[in-house]
This record gives sequence, structure tokens and C-alpha cells, in this order.
Amino acid sequence: MRIAIDAMGGDNAPEAIVKGVCYAVENIPNLSVVLVGDKQKINSYLTTTKNIDIIHTQDVITSEDEPVRAVRRKKNASMVLMANEVKEGRADACISAGNTGALMSAGLFIVGRIRGIDRPALSPTLPTLDGKGFLLLDVGANVDAKPQHLLQYGIMGSIYAEKVRGVHNPRVGLLNVGTENQKGSELSKKAFLLLEDAPINFIGNVEARDFLDGVADIIVTDGFSGNVALKSIEGTALGMFSMLKEVFMKNAKTKLAAAAIKGDLKGLKSKLDYSEYGGAGLFGLAAPVIKAHGSSNDRAVYNAIKQACQLVEQEVTNKIEETVESLNTEEGNE
Amino acid sequence: MRIAIDAMGGDNAPEAIVKGVCYAVENIPNLSVVLVGDKQKINSYLTTTKNIDIIHTQDVITSEDEPVRAVRRKKNASMVLMANEVKEGRADACISAGNTGALMSAGLFIVGRIRGIDRPALSPTLPTLDGKGFLLLDVGANVDAKPQHLLQYGIMGSIYAEKVRGVHNPRVGLLNVGTENQKGSELSKKAFLLLEDAPINFIGNVEARDFLDGVADIIVTDGFSGNVALKSIEGTALGMFSMLKEVFMKNAKTKLAAAAIKGDLKGLKSKLDYSEYGGAGLFGLAAPVIKAHGSSNDRAVYNAIKQACQLVEQEVTNKIEETVESLNTEEGNE
Repeated sequence: MRIAIDAMGGDNAPEAIVKGVCYAVENIPNLSVVLVGDKQKINSYLTTTKNIDIIHTQDVITSEDEPVRAVRRKKNASMVLMANEVKEGRADACISAGNTGALMSAGLFIVGRIRGIDRPALSPTLPTLDGKGFLLLDVGANVDAKPQHLLQYGIMGSIYAEKVRGVHNPRVGLLNVGTENQKGSELSKKAFLLLEDAPINFIGNVEARDFLDGVADIIVTDGFSGNVALKSIEGTALGMFSMLKEVFMKNAKTKLAAAAIKGDLKGLKSKLDYSEYGGAGLFGLAAPVIKAHGSSNDRAVYNAIKQACQLVEQEVTNKIEETVESLNTEEGNE
Repeated sequence: MRIAIDAMGGDNAPEAIVKGVCYAVENIPNLSVVLVGDKQKINSYLTTTKNIDIIHTQDVITSEDEPVRAVRRKKNASMVLMANEVKEGRADACISAGNTGALMSAGLFIVGRIRGIDRPALSPTLPTLDGKGFLLLDVGANVDAKPQHLLQYGIMGSIYAEKVRGVHNPRVGLLNVGTENQKGSELSKKAFLLLEDAPINFIGNVEARDFLDGVADIIVTDGFSGNVALKSIEGTALGMFSMLKEVFMKNAKTKLAAAAIKGDLKGLKSKLDYSEYGGAGLFGLAAPVIKAHGSSNDRAVYNAIKQACQLVEQEVTNKIEETVESLNTEEGNE
């Protein structure tokens, strides 16, 4: 199994990327990695060269680059060359912690879609109080989604949850403004009807208020609402942690209290840290493409590599293609 | 000034409602209140009868009732009779902590819209770290919004922030998936162009991640995304508080730590408590209609009454009507 990795993407590149890769090749059997980026910089962090190849380039897509244009024009950017490895069949999957929009463009234009899938979905796993997490899709690959897209998200999410996260008969919920049937926007009402008829365990409408309680294993929505949900959660959690910090740093008494529960608070923070669940998958592409969080450390990079390996081993892409194909055939026969 | 209040709406009705009203008539000059609901139950909590009238009814719209049907059929429900008081000109504004959907229906069908406003917006003020808060509209009155609606939300929100919350030249942001211009869905791209030309202080796109930092005084979005944002914030904050509680109750050491910062933590919780900012206004109706939070205590009810009084005193409804009218005239002249 061979994974192509953009060594130059993300806030902590290339250090965190290279370190995560070194740890992965030492710990994941049958893994080989091709790192794409500045050879000299990569070499300075390598602690092993076993099963690691390097494709050298000095060109990089930055977070300021306009995604579509950058992918089209910067032919030698590390992210573009990484995607090429997958397209040409020299790698089974790819990972970048760089510009999210550019990775979506590279995925769509270079790696390409699975036949039958209209739109790929960007799909992170978000934390829940019980530590199991849930898959939210889409969080921004497709901001003007149609009901048919949400149906496909439900199918792709189910296959991922079952094959990679080991959830038996995973529950699919539709994000909505209330839990009653036939509630919500035109989009959600139509998507509800399609999801009801799909070969998945559809549990109906769910509300954003119940996310942390693990109300479903997979939650589908359009990319606009999903993006808003994701960022609302992030912003609230970060804001609360900064308020807590202020409380704890107030005076000697509160500092003492903080010291007493430091370990437990760290546990709370890591519970809410979604890099533990790997990166966000770009589901619906012809091969696994993973967006690692921009602030990924070496551990998050390692988790993303593990996730990519499972996607490859479990043949998730094939399984999605087969399921969508059989649905389309059924429809044709009706 | 006379406010009609649904005595029977909300989790703590009628006790919290009646107590909040008693406190309000004692503390707000020139206020008279008409309480609508079960006379006997209301009487048992009344500590004053000065400037308080009661309209007796035993009929109530519950949280389980289907909103539109309930408002049409339960002609004698406390919420319906309350809205009638405003419609008939016997009250200047009304407040309910009951079924949100039913209040929106009662507002739309009984109180009616301001001429020129296409859709009312449900508009709570949400907390920010600096304690100033921001107005989010719409959070669910209109789940399939059009660009023109978002423009009107920006105008209504600006007038409210300036007249009632005393914000000079309030900043209006458009909720979007990124901060760059011309980002996002078809809806947000078109709304952006309209907001740019509006007689408001439009600061461009804002992200949900920056809500708590007070990135804008007013944030406009469609009712679906606004509802998702509101509930994501609520769910995350509640989830984190329950995780914190667990940490603090873990053992003797953590309990001691909790005792030491109890007061400060309460402060944090009240900072995030949006009932401090009053209820959610239903902007765009022919008179002020306020949705108090379902779990309102007497203090929240009092705050909602204060808010309704300011809306009436500052003639916010007239001001919205004039502004929208002048815009439409301008368009006609172009």
C-alpha cells in the first residue's frame, strides 16, 4: 500500500508531516510513502528512509492562493504532484494538510470522481461526549447541494462508518431545524424522502443541539450548513476554553484550583480534539483523498495516514461505486 | 405603554411569567401589562395588581401542537388572544415563551407584516466574549430565504441594534463559508451584492468560528443556517459545561478545586446566558413580538419586557417601515 503525502501543506509543515510519516512507516505494516516537497527540508526531519520516497519540488500552493486557479497553474506544486501520483496509479491514496479549497479542486480535477457520484463531500469526524464521534458531511465541498447529493452522502457515510470506523448498522441522520418528519427547507424535505428509501439505517431528522450527545453516526447536510455547524462548534469550544483559562489565571486561589484539575482538563480538551479521529475524507473521489487539519501535529498526520490505509484496505471506493451503481440499475429497472 | 403577555407559555409558566411581570410593573415607568391565561393560576403568583389586567382563558397551545393548525383552530388559546390584543390596538407589543413556531404563525397571521417586508425574521441576541452580544437573524422563521430577504434582515437588524441596543453605526456581517468576497452559495453571493449597496454599515462575509469574538453587531443568514448555528452553539456550550461538571465531581481533590472557582464559573455561565439580552425579536411584524426562551425564569421575562418597551419607545417598527419604503421609492426612481 502506497500513500502520497504533501510534505509542504499545513501550519507545521514540513516538520510535523515528515515526523508523522516516519512514525507511520515504522508502525504500519506494508506501508510505503511518497513525500512530495522540498527535498532538503524534508531530509532535515527524516529519522528513517525505509519505505519513504521523495518527489522533489519547491513549488507550493499557499493558504492565500485561489484554489481552482492555483491547481490549474501551479503544475509543479507539491499538492498537484501528490494528486498526480494517485491519478497515474503510482499511489493508492493521498493526504494534504494544505489549502482545503485547492485540495478539493485537485481531488475533483486530477483524481476525479467515482462514476455515479455527482459531487464529492468533505467529511470530518466530529467529537461526541462518549468518544465515539460522528461523521458530518458535507462541510463545504458543495455549498449548493441538491437532494440527490444528500442521498449519496448518506450512502458514502454509511459505508465509511461501517468499513473504517467499525460501526455496525450505522445510524444516518439528516440535519434539520426540528426532529419532526417533513420539517425544514425544500432541500431537506426532498432529501428526507430519498433517504427514507435508501439502503441505509436512516433515523430521520436530527438537530445540531444534539451533536455532542452522539445522536447519529453519520449526519448529512448541504455544504453551507455543514460548514456553519462545524465552525460554530469550533468557535464555541475555543471561546469557552479561552474563557476558562481566564478564570483559572485570575488569582492565586484559582491558579491552585487549575493545577489540581489540570490533567482532567487536558483529557476534556483531547476529547474534543478531532484530529484524534484522523483527517476529513473527500468522499466520492476515485481514490481516498484526506484533508488533514491545517494545524496538524505529527500525531494527527499519523492518524490521517492510518485512516487512508484503512480506506484502501477496506476498498471503500469500490464499495461506494458498487452501491451507487446498483441503486442506479434498480432505478432503471423500475 | 401596554404589553400583552402569554402567561401560559414556556417551561416555567405561569410562575416565572407572572413574577417577571410583577417585577416589571414595579420598575418600569408607564408600563401596563395584560396577562392572558388561567386567572386562578395567575392570581396565585401575583404580588401586585397595579397596572396588571388579566384576560382569562383555559386554552393553551402546547409545544407539541402543530404551529399553523394550532393558531388557526385554538381561537381562545392564550397566545392567540395575546396576539389579538396587539392586532386590535389594545396593546403595543406582545411576548410569549411558548411554542416558537406557533408564535411565528400568530405573528404573521394575526399581527401581520410591515408593509414592504417580505418575510419576518426570528432574531435572538447571542453572547460574545466581551459581553456586548450580536444579533443573529434569521434563526428559523424563513428556512428558504431569498437574497432580498437577507437585505431586509440587514436593515431591520441595524435599526434594532442602533435604537434598542445603542450601538453606533452597527456592523452588519453576512454569514458565509469564508471571509473573501464572492465566496459561498448562490444565495450568499447575491445577498452580498445587495448588502453592499444598502444604507447600512456592511462589513462583508463573516465565519461562524468568529461569533464569540464579536466579529459583527448583526449577522444575517437564511433561517436554516441560522438555526443550525444557534443550536450548534447551544449544544457545544451545554455539552462542555456537562463535561466540566463531570471533571469537577470526579474526586475529593477536584471537588475542592471546583469550590474554589465556583463563583467565577458561574460568571462564565451567565456570560454565555443569552436570556440576559432579552428574548428573540420577530422583526418585520407590524408591532413588536418577542419570543422569550422556553426555559425563561422571571429575570428573563423581565428582560424581555424591558426589550419590548424599548422597541415601542424607540418606534422601531415605524423606522423599519420608513427605511424599507424609502428604498423601494429609490428603486422606483432609478
